[in-house]
Amino acid sequence: MWTGCSGLRSVAAIKPVSCRSMTTATSSKPIRIGVVGATGYTGVELLRLLARHPAANLHVVTSRGEAGTPVATMFPSLRGAVDAVFQAPDEAVLGDCDVVFFATPHGVAHGLAAPLLERGVRIIDLSADFRIRDPELWARWYGQAHGAPQYLDEAVYGLPELNREQIRAARLIAVPGCYPTAVSLAVLPLLEAGLVDPDDVIADAKSGVSGAGRKAQIGGLFAEVQEDFRAYASGGHRHWPEIQQTLSGVAGQSVGLIFQPHLVPMTRGIHATLYLRPHGQADWQACFEKRYHNEPFVDVMPAGSHPQTSSVRGTNLCRIALAQPPHSDRLMVLSVIDNLVKGAAGQAVQNMNLMFGLEETAGLSGLPVFP
Amino acid sequence: MWTGCSGLRSVAAIKPVSCRSMTTATSSKPIRIGVVGATGYTGVELLRLLARHPAANLHVVTSRGEAGTPVATMFPSLRGAVDAVFQAPDEAVLGDCDVVFFATPHGVAHGLAAPLLERGVRIIDLSADFRIRDPELWARWYGQAHGAPQYLDEAVYGLPELNREQIRAARLIAVPGCYPTAVSLAVLPLLEAGLVDPDDVIADAKSGVSGAGRKAQIGGLFAEVQEDFRAYASGGHRHWPEIQQTLSGVAGQSVGLIFQPHLVPMTRGIHATLYLRPHGQADWQACFEKRYHNEPFVDVMPAGSHPQTSSVRGTNLCRIALAQPPHSDRLMVLSVIDNLVKGAAGQAVQNMNLMFGLEETAGLSGLPVFP
Amino acid sequence: MWTGCSGLRSVAAIKPVSCRSMTTATSSKPIRIGVVGATGYTGVELLRLLARHPAANLHVVTSRGEAGTPVATMFPSLRGAVDAVFQAPDEAVLGDCDVVFFATPHGVAHGLAAPLLERGVRIIDLSADFRIRDPELWARWYGQAHGAPQYLDEAVYGLPELNREQIRAARLIAVPGCYPTAVSLAVLPLLEAGLVDPDDVIADAKSGVSGAGRKAQIGGLFAEVQEDFRAYASGGHRHWPEIQQTLSGVAGQSVGLIFQPHLVPMTRGIHATLYLRPHGQADWQACFEKRYHNEPFVDVMPAGSHPQTSSVRGTNLCRIALAQPPHSDRLMVLSVIDNLVKGAAGQAVQNMNLMFGLEETAGLSGLPVFP
Amino acid sequence: MWTGCSGLRSVAAIKPVSCRSMTTATSSKPIRIGVVGATGYTGVELLRLLARHPAANLHVVTSRGEAGTPVATMFPSLRGAVDAVFQAPDEAVLGDCDVVFFATPHGVAHGLAAPLLERGVRIIDLSADFRIRDPELWARWYGQAHGAPQYLDEAVYGLPELNREQIRAARLIAVPGCYPTAVSLAVLPLLEAGLVDPDDVIADAKSGVSGAGRKAQIGGLFAEVQEDFRAYASGGHRHWPEIQQTLSGVAGQSVGLIFQPHLVPMTRGIHATLYLRPHGQADWQACFEKRYHNEPFVDVMPAGSHPQTSSVRGTNLCRIALAQPPHSDRLMVLSVIDNLVKGAAGQAVQNMNLMFGLEETAGLSGLPVFP
Repeated sequence: MWTGCSGLRSVAAIKPVSCRSMTTATSSKPIRIGVVGATGYTGVELLRLLARHPAANLHVVTSRGEAGTPVATMFPSLRGAVDAVFQAPDEAVLGDCDVVFFATPHGVAHGLAAPLLERGVRIIDLSADFRIRDPELWARWYGQAHGAPQYLDEAVYGLPELNREQIRAARLIAVPGCYPTAVSLAVLPLLEAGLVDPDDVIADAKSGVSGAGRKAQIGGLFAEVQEDFRAYASGGHRHWPEIQQTLSGVAGQSVGLIFQPHLVPMTRGIHATLYLRPHGQADWQACFEKRYHNEPFVDVMPAGSHPQTSSVRGTNLCRIALAQPPHSDRLMVLSVIDNLVKGAAGQAVQNMNLMFGLEETAGLSGLPVFP
Repeated sequence: MWTGCSGLRSVAAIKPVSCRSMTTATSSKPIRIGVVGATGYTGVELLRLLARHPAANLHVVTSRGEAGTPVATMFPSLRGAVDAVFQAPDEAVLGDCDVVFFATPHGVAHGLAAPLLERGVRIIDLSADFRIRDPELWARWYGQAHGAPQYLDEAVYGLPELNREQIRAARLIAVPGCYPTAVSLAVLPLLEAGLVDPDDVIADAKSGVSGAGRKAQIGGLFAEVQEDFRAYASGGHRHWPEIQQTLSGVAGQSVGLIFQPHLVPMTRGIHATLYLRPHGQADWQACFEKRYHNEPFVDVMPAGSHPQTSSVRGTNLCRIALAQPPHSDRLMVLSVIDNLVKGAAGQAVQNMNLMFGLEETAGLSGLPVFP
Repeated sequence: MWTGCSGLRSVAAIKPVSCRSMTTATSSKPIRIGVVGATGYTGVELLRLLARHPAANLHVVTSRGEAGTPVATMFPSLRGAVDAVFQAPDEAVLGDCDVVFFATPHGVAHGLAAPLLERGVRIIDLSADFRIRDPELWARWYGQAHGAPQYLDEAVYGLPELNREQIRAARLIAVPGCYPTAVSLAVLPLLEAGLVDPDDVIADAKSGVSGAGRKAQIGGLFAEVQEDFRAYASGGHRHWPEIQQTLSGVAGQSVGLIFQPHLVPMTRGIHATLYLRPHGQADWQACFEKRYHNEPFVDVMPAGSHPQTSSVRGTNLCRIALAQPPHSDRLMVLSVIDNLVKGAAGQAVQNMNLMFGLEETAGLSGLPVFP
Repeated sequence: MWTGCSGLRSVAAIKPVSCRSMTTATSSKPIRIGVVGATGYTGVELLRLLARHPAANLHVVTSRGEAGTPVATMFPSLRGAVDAVFQAPDEAVLGDCDVVFFATPHGVAHGLAAPLLERGVRIIDLSADFRIRDPELWARWYGQAHGAPQYLDEAVYGLPELNREQIRAARLIAVPGCYPTAVSLAVLPLLEAGLVDPDDVIADAKSGVSGAGRKAQIGGLFAEVQEDFRAYASGGHRHWPEIQQTLSGVAGQSVGLIFQPHLVPMTRGIHATLYLRPHGQADWQACFEKRYHNEPFVDVMPAGSHPQTSSVRGTNLCRIALAQPPHSDRLMVLSVIDNLVKGAAGQAVQNMNLMFGLEETAGLSGLPVFP
């Protein structure tokens, strides 16, 4: 009998990223998986995770532009591990899957959602297509009409720490954006407990450049990014309405949110620094520890810690620490994730695990590669 | 007659970094300069600037630990430009200078200030020794008694945009810290004009790692910093009382300040993101443009711009832009400097230029090396 | 029944990094493991791999300087995965292990080898202590007398692609250096087949800075390494005699070798560029493909490919490609590894797997994290 | 009287980068300058140098695609220093210049050379259009017919260390490529003196990514380049025939050359490592020192030094050191330049200085920004 990681005594009990799921998963049929648009960074990360997932059967990987190219030719890191060849998206082939991931620009999942859902295929959409519940609001921020508003009621916002039970039952998942994941997890417990003022939430966020995607653009060139730090989108970022919606839902009122993103000269990682106004003193640390006690992917560090993006790189973890600035009655929360994992592909797999009754951590137990 | 850069029509008039100073400077005797403790990053940057300064005569460079080593052996970038050899610090030799720069850890300038000032040598101290006016406060943040409190009244805080006239007459300059420069310049005009609430100033600041100095420590190793982003000193940073003192002086009341620094995986550059609470609407852009109109080293960019640290690298410039977050009544100010230039060595030279009646921009007209 | 990765159809057959070993391993008792000196980069990488190894039981982790510190406090990336606390090295505790890894500076394993081997503990030494067969030669390059020459005859040079059978039977393994691994694998097939001139081997090698270890030294600071490229040790590097010994053993004669290392501003990765003089034309590609056909960790890419260090990051893989320079009768071989994995900790685990009868790939099936 | 840098005693005499040229230059009329295609990295670097050049008058900057955009909008680093606006290229306006620089892709200078030369405008071409003397060879490597073969006889290869006198008299300069500059300067003295075998020259070269230009392409993205090292163009690089031509000219016979470039995860800098076969022992160090004694931009370091790209960053310097590998009769030469300065824009300005009778170092005296 294979006993999984529990045979490894050095694995601490703090956050048991169990491997028992592997046994569970493979006792049933592997999940037939389709990935639409896997030529970006979110896509290659998803393929990396699925290639070592104990219950995943990668059925089809599509890319209109790269049809015929072996995936491992485009991504040499996958040589020997993924032998799929990019195919043009085809409803019939995709319709033969148990679940289809969309790692596409916004608008694509709108078009394919109906035919796939009608065939009984579940959808995990890593794009922004179903994140905003109000189609008018979506249209305003994304500059085009919403293409599938009929599914907005049923789409579940795939933040397991908030919506675990709905996710288990969902047909259509909107995987949260990277910033929204890092920011929401850092404020959730306090808003739920009513410990901070919902009218005064400031989120100063910093991201590595893989968040901008794998697009040929001068702004993303090494020589432009290296040795540079800058803010961007100070006039408004598309993740603002998404975060605002999530936090408002939790707070039970419209939240006053400032969200300012910055670009860090590194590839992966998001660091969110939250400035909150507490309603008097409280044991905020206990609040977080209790809220996330059973969460396999949220690590509440001792107060005064400084979470580092390198400590979550390549993993589905969110690490959080609290701090109180000197001579101030504000409260700070520091939160880090890997934008491509907990901020995208890893969270998508976490959703899949929940939807298919697998151990939530299946395929997500790799440790951060440091340094 | 040499007409300096004015002969170069491509040099725009926006910020005339004039070279006329060269003529001015060399019509009089070169300034005899001593540099104490030039083995760090601030020191090598100071030597780079002085080696090409039209009025500087580098008389002595001291380092107790490196006495006998040619400067250019330690810093190959200075081969052929600096032929000085590190000497042990000696009061007589230093006393023979017109001005002595201290690029030392805190505490060193305390000890040498008296003998040098008594010999009529002017001092430009890049360390923190004379920045805080209250010796008790200094002792609390720096963990040792203040070593020369008798000079605190006379020491001038060397931020030319604030104290230009006092600097001209000063014998002893406390060059501002790097973060305090970036933050103070970003708030000064608004506090002076009474346009924002002095009780609610949040400065989220990010710095390249050269700010931590050239010390053998694991935390500064490439493998620790690369691909990592983190906050630090969330329990309180020594630049907090310095910024607080400056802003309070401007506001005419004790300012409520949060200052949270972060470490960016790059060598040079500071980006400060300020969250301020304005007293209603006002033409903040005009306020900044008017305030800094004649400043050679402050560039107010069009509102909505995103200043980049790479656009000031290697120069004494501070670039600033304003932004208003959507659905918020807050005001943001974005400010960038090169921490080793405007945040240290360049500002020190700017002070020297003022003290010796040179053109303020002498030796500081180099352009950012991009990319 | 858990069917391992074979249930995952997307895993190609090119290099079957099988997971069957897990089943094998756990059918018997877990291996009790000691790690001496795990405070460096090689050490933390070893702990990362062992923490997810299906047959590993981390019994003790020692560090004289850090005794009492939890491993995960020093390395936050291991929080929740390694709950060990550093202990002072103790012969009794180490003597209770099945195998002890040394991730120490040279000289340490010399001292502990005898007592451990006498207790029946197997040793996998990641340091240079037992790599050079001639103790005089070792003493010359390492600047001190050899401390345990009596074990040199029995020590096995742990390059599985060369010495697989001896490794299975060994008590004492000298894990090859990082450069020697990358260079040796790139020349082995040609020297074995007598296809190139053994008198004229040039290896121009480039390494990320983690190869210099986790030592507080100015030369390793971010600000010194970033945006810099340089050669080092042009007067002779300690890996020269090691490579020379390996290649000479294969060629059956003393090999004429030039080995010049360079420092790359990145954390992980080695790229070796070999310039060889072939004895006339031959099917070099076929030679490599045949030689490494069954090797789970050597990937011979199509001729003309350009192996990238990022394509092996975090993994035990060596990727190799051949090229012929235009207008030349020379042959080039390009070879990449991750210096901390195939060049150190991963190869050490590969050796352990062989020594304990596990599947050779056990615990080493993670994929490169790209980007 | 302004005495230039000679008033600065700290400026060593090793390589007197004199500033006297400024006086010289401005005693006569400023040079009217046109720059064609300044939207790339070579272009912005050229503008940086020209904006502070004492004799330069930037008359027109052209870009077909960016006509109407202020240069400083595209390059914020030039704000306040360059007020030019990109114009569509126009023969009349360009024809009004004293000299026109081409910082364009290959093929463009071919088309504009005739009309400009006929109007008496001198041309300094930073592209590859006039580097190869044989138009057939050029056509083979650049994939198109040569567009102006009638000027090949008169075009001067602008390597001042080789062709200084011809440059002074030239109308049309082909500025050498970046790799050819670094490699040629490292071998010239030895080939001229007949000290090494011209049939066996191996140049292993490494470059920062700015050498690939400012083009929107996935291969240049930060996330692709960061933490990666790779060879490229192992099947043949366009700089091979250029280097081969230069070295053959010097050696008086066709040189046997291997040239293999690699990509370094940094923005600027080239490091060339040369493996040469000497004809017996000789005082190679003296050979280099004598050959480059009067060269203002070549710094021969002590034997055994390791030149660092960071020590020449932003400057027109080439630093060179010799080494002899242990147990080998080969000779190594290590050579570093900044690919955008001595490898492009700086060398172009050096050529202009020579053509217009200015001090050769005019406008090129800035020191490396380190760190």
